[in-house]
Parts: sequence; C-alpha cells; structure tokens
Amino acid sequence: MAILIAVIGASKASRREAECAEEIGRLIAGRGAVLVCGGLGGVMEAACRGAKQAGGVTIGVLPVYDRSAANPHVDYAIATGLGHARNVIVASSADAVIAVGGAAGTLSEIAFAMNGGITVVALDGWKLDETRIPEGAYLVADSPDDAVRKAFESIK
Amino acid sequence: MAILIAVIGASKASRREAECAEEIGRLIAGRGAVLVCGGLGGVMEAACRGAKQAGGVTIGVLPVYDRSAANPHVDYAIATGLGHARNVIVASSADAVIAVGGAAGTLSEIAFAMNGGITVVALDGWKLDETRIPEGAYLVADSPDDAVRKAFESIK
Amino acid sequence: MAILIAVIGASKASRREAECAEEIGRLIAGRGAVLVCGGLGGVMEAACRGAKQAGGVTIGVLPVYDRSAANPHVDYAIATGLGHARNVIVASSADAVIAVGGAAGTLSEIAFAMNGGITVVALDGWKLDETRIPEGAYLVADSPDDAVRKAFESIK
Amino acid sequence: MAILIAVIGASKASRREAECAEEIGRLIAGRGAVLVCGGLGGVMEAACRGAKQAGGVTIGVLPVYDRSAANPHVDYAIATGLGHARNVIVASSADAVIAVGGAAGTLSEIAFAMNGGITVVALDGWKLDETRIPEGAYLVADSPDDAVRKAFESIK
Repeated sequence: MAILIAVIGASKASRREAECAEEIGRLIAGRGAVLVCGGLGGVMEAACRGAKQAGGVTIGVLPVYDRSAANPHVDYAIATGLGHARNVIVASSADAVIAVGGAAGTLSEIAFAMNGGITVVALDGWKLDETRIPEGAYLVADSPDDAVRKAFESIK
Repeated sequence: MAILIAVIGASKASRREAECAEEIGRLIAGRGAVLVCGGLGGVMEAACRGAKQAGGVTIGVLPVYDRSAANPHVDYAIATGLGHARNVIVASSADAVIAVGGAAGTLSEIAFAMNGGITVVALDGWKLDETRIPEGAYLVADSPDDAVRKAFESIK
Repeated sequence: MAILIAVIGASKASRREAECAEEIGRLIAGRGAVLVCGGLGGVMEAACRGAKQAGGVTIGVLPVYDRSAANPHVDYAIATGLGHARNVIVASSADAVIAVGGAAGTLSEIAFAMNGGITVVALDGWKLDETRIPEGAYLVADSPDDAVRKAFESIK
Repeated sequence: MAILIAVIGASKASRREAECAEEIGRLIAGRGAVLVCGGLGGVMEAACRGAKQAGGVTIGVLPVYDRSAANPHVDYAIATGLGHARNVIVASSADAVIAVGGAAGTLSEIAFAMNGGITVVALDGWKLDETRIPEGAYLVADSPDDAVRKAFESIK
C-alpha cells in the first residue's frame, strides 16, 4: 500500500506558509507518497497544488458532505459531514504528519497523531510542552526539505 | 473530480454475492470511476478485486485505526477509528451506491445515502417499504451490469 | 446505572405521531427510565415533552455544536457536531429503541440499533424485510403502551 | 438548561491529579452544574466521584459501545463507539472545560474546546504557545478552587 503523508495547517495561510506547504506537497509527491489533508483552502490547498505539480495523488478528508467544497487540486474527496471530528481521520490515516503553522484545529490534529503514535514534524508551528511528549513524537523542521526528510525518516 | 461509486455489503459474502461484487467492481473501473467501500472483506474485498483487475482505483474507509486491516486490493485506506459511524462516510462520499446483499450495517449505509439524496441500487438486497422512500431513491437491479448501468444513470 | 430508552422519528411529526411520541415519553418516565433522543423537534420534542410531564429525565444528542438547538424539554444536550453520524450514538446509547414513524434518518438509527443487538420497537414505522433480520430484533407495536411494554421486555 | 462543565485528563491519574479532580468535581456539583467527561477512569473517575459526593449529576461520553465501561460514578453513559473522536463531543458539550494534567488525548480536547470558543482552565497541565491562542481562551489555575472559579467566570 502507498505511503500516506498528511499535511495540516490553517485554511487561511500566510504567503510564507502557502509557499512552504506547496514545496512540501511537491517533495512528498516527488518521493512517490500520497498526500492526505483536510481538503479545504490555505495550507491544504497549497500542499495539494504542489503535489499535483509533481504528478502526485491527493486525498481530501472534508468536514462537510459536499464534495465540491474540496480545493481544485484534490483527486479524491472523502465527504465525512463530521465537522471538526474529521481531524481525527486526517491524523490517523497518515504514516507521518507535517504541520505548517496552524491554530487550534491544527493542534487537535497534532494531538491525535501523537495519541496514535504517528510522528508529527512541525514547520513554523506550535511549540509544545516537551515534558508531556514522548521522545521523537514531535519534531521541529527548519525548511520544507527538512520537514519532508524527517517525516519519511520517522516511518518504520 | 473523479466519479466515485460505493459498493456496500456484508464482510462475509456468499459465493454468489462475491461474484456479483467482483463483476460490479470490474464494470465500475471499466467506466473510469473510482470505487469506494468500507475496506474490509466479503463484498468489499470482492468489489476491490474486480476494480483492480480492470485497472481501477479503490478507496477503503476503515472502521479502525489500523490501515493494515484493509483488504489487499485497497489502494488508499482511510483509517477512521469511528466504528460503525464510518458507514456515514462511505455512503456520503459516493455519487451513487450499489448494495449487494447485506445485513443491518448495509441497511445503515442505504439509509444514509438516501438521507443525503444519493441513489442506491440494490442487487439481491433489502426490500424496502416503498411508501417511505422518495421516488427513484432506491432502485432494484437484476444483474451486476444492470446495477452499474442504473448507478451511472442516476448521477446527474 | 439508569435504563435508557431511545425514541426516534422525524423532526417534523404528524399530529398522530406527536401524540404517540408524547405518550411514549410519559410512559418511559413513568417507569423510571431515562429518555434519549436526537434532541430536535417533531417526534423527539414530543417524546421529551411527555417525559418531562411525568417527571422524567431527557437527554438530547444533537447533530450540531450549538446546544441551544435542543428542544426546550431536553435536560442534558450533548453537542456532537457530527451531522447524521450522531444517529449512531442515539441508537447505541439505549437499552431499547422505540421508533415512531420516520424516514431515512430514522431507518439509519434502526439499522445501527439492530447492528448493536439492541431491540427496536416500531409504531407506525418502517416495514422491514424479515428475511434479513434476526428474530426479535425488530418488533411492531400497535399502541404507545404496547411499544413501551415491548421495549422494556426486550431488556435482559 | 443546566450549566455543563467538562473535566478532562488522563485515564491513569497520579494521586495528586486524582485528589484535584475529585475536589473539582465536588465544587462543580456544589455550584449546581452538571459534570461531563469521557466516562472512564483516572481523572474522569475522580471528578465523577467528587461530583456524586456533592449530590451532582454526571455524564460520561464513552469511546466504546459498551456502557458498562463507564466508571461507577457516571449517571448517564453515552456510548459513542467513536474512539478518540468522542473527545470532540466532550469538549463541545460543555460551557467551560477544566483540564487536570493530561497527555495527548487531553491536548486534543483542549484544542477542540479552543476551536469552538469554549474556555479551558488548566491545572498542572499543558503549557501552550501563547502566541497562537486567543486571549482568555486558555487559563492557568493554581488550585481546584481557582480552576472552578475561573471556569464559571468564563461563562457569559
């Protein structure tokens, strides 16, 4: 089965966040992995755009029932209608998670991934209380390239 | 975006159900649509096997967190951990639903699809109380070919 | 722990359905059980009204995040934000389920209850394909009193 | 409708966490509010025990279908079968959330509450990146009494 990498972040991205997410999407697809995300705009859309530029496959797990809410770079839209609970699915379906920036919704995905033993790599994202995190569960990257490299290295 | 057709049915299939589901999977992929299902065995596995024989793409929306629970013909496994609630997602993510046989779990997917205005085509499946169903919401097919034809015709 | 009885049905009820649901709510509370429902209008509201008239306790499991969407007779509103997937919770949290009328949403709750081995008693509701249902899983009642009696008898 | 306060934390609690949670449960019930939690052991059980000592009402939103998994101090067990996604419901159903200690699961509930505009008060819990949190969304308490006071003050 294909390797799946989740890219998470806010549905409204800064220019820098969008550029990073797009580059991350390209690099994920370049390594032959599938991109999974929440399917909407901002970081999610930028990551999907990048993945498609590199000929990759993209899956968007939507909070709504309407598949047309997916950004135009999503190949396969999963319509959950679950609202924020769809964050569990994004985080649980990946072999590794890359977070770009992000607010509370992104934090919930980080938490779910860590809870499931899936490594999270953060770029310009949440600083977390290291005393409460298992070693290696939450890594900090300093570039898109570093983030993708660390995500793939975390996969056993 | 690709057309998605859901195939639903029990995780333990009779020989006849498995043959029908496999043929339905082949026909869906032959028309260029993507197969979505619950990702496990029985009808789900047979449909995925058929779709892959015809060069198609298969998505399995699993009730558990462990993606390795997916049958070997699933290309993209979505790990929900939601138990039976994942049935909502299978039913909501498709443009049309084809039910092969099935017990109570399948009935819940039929109900969710109808609730969302997605046509269900049944082959050897539940007989439903016509007085409670909108016209055209639940169609009966007499062969795999008939089922797939009716499913595609239902898509506006 | 208290016995919980779910009352399910459409959010727009006919006069007869509302009268039946209200009487069912009264009878459930009169026997000291707790009423659980989807928390909205129609059959749900009528059942809650009846339960409160008889001094009972009512729980509403809402599809939305806004607890103020609950009908005024709900004591404890659970805000799921899960859309139709909250139907799983209503059906799974009860010792027995009573369905009054109902369309596709109600059918999904009936299916989930049967899937979980919880007896459903129907009053003026879905006729189901008996060949696909375990014996005793789906009972038909001819009055509110009969429905409540059968529901309690089904609880081991 | 009653005020609902969620108490969240790990299912295995240290002695100090359990004592704090129990005192918080007593204080919540003493103010006439209802306690909602995840229904299991550790912090959840201690909080429920405290609430019942003070004559309060307790609701447990379980990750499983089996209501007998609830701790013995839960009055109303909601059986979701949703796994970790039930954390969304605990966080969304409360007027305010009090976190006692906690690991990744608790962090997901904190994130969901903040996402929904519900104030979280933490006692001996996660230190969060203040630059990413709206002012007043995440408060730190230094005692059970302080936590409960801040939780009630946050409710408009």
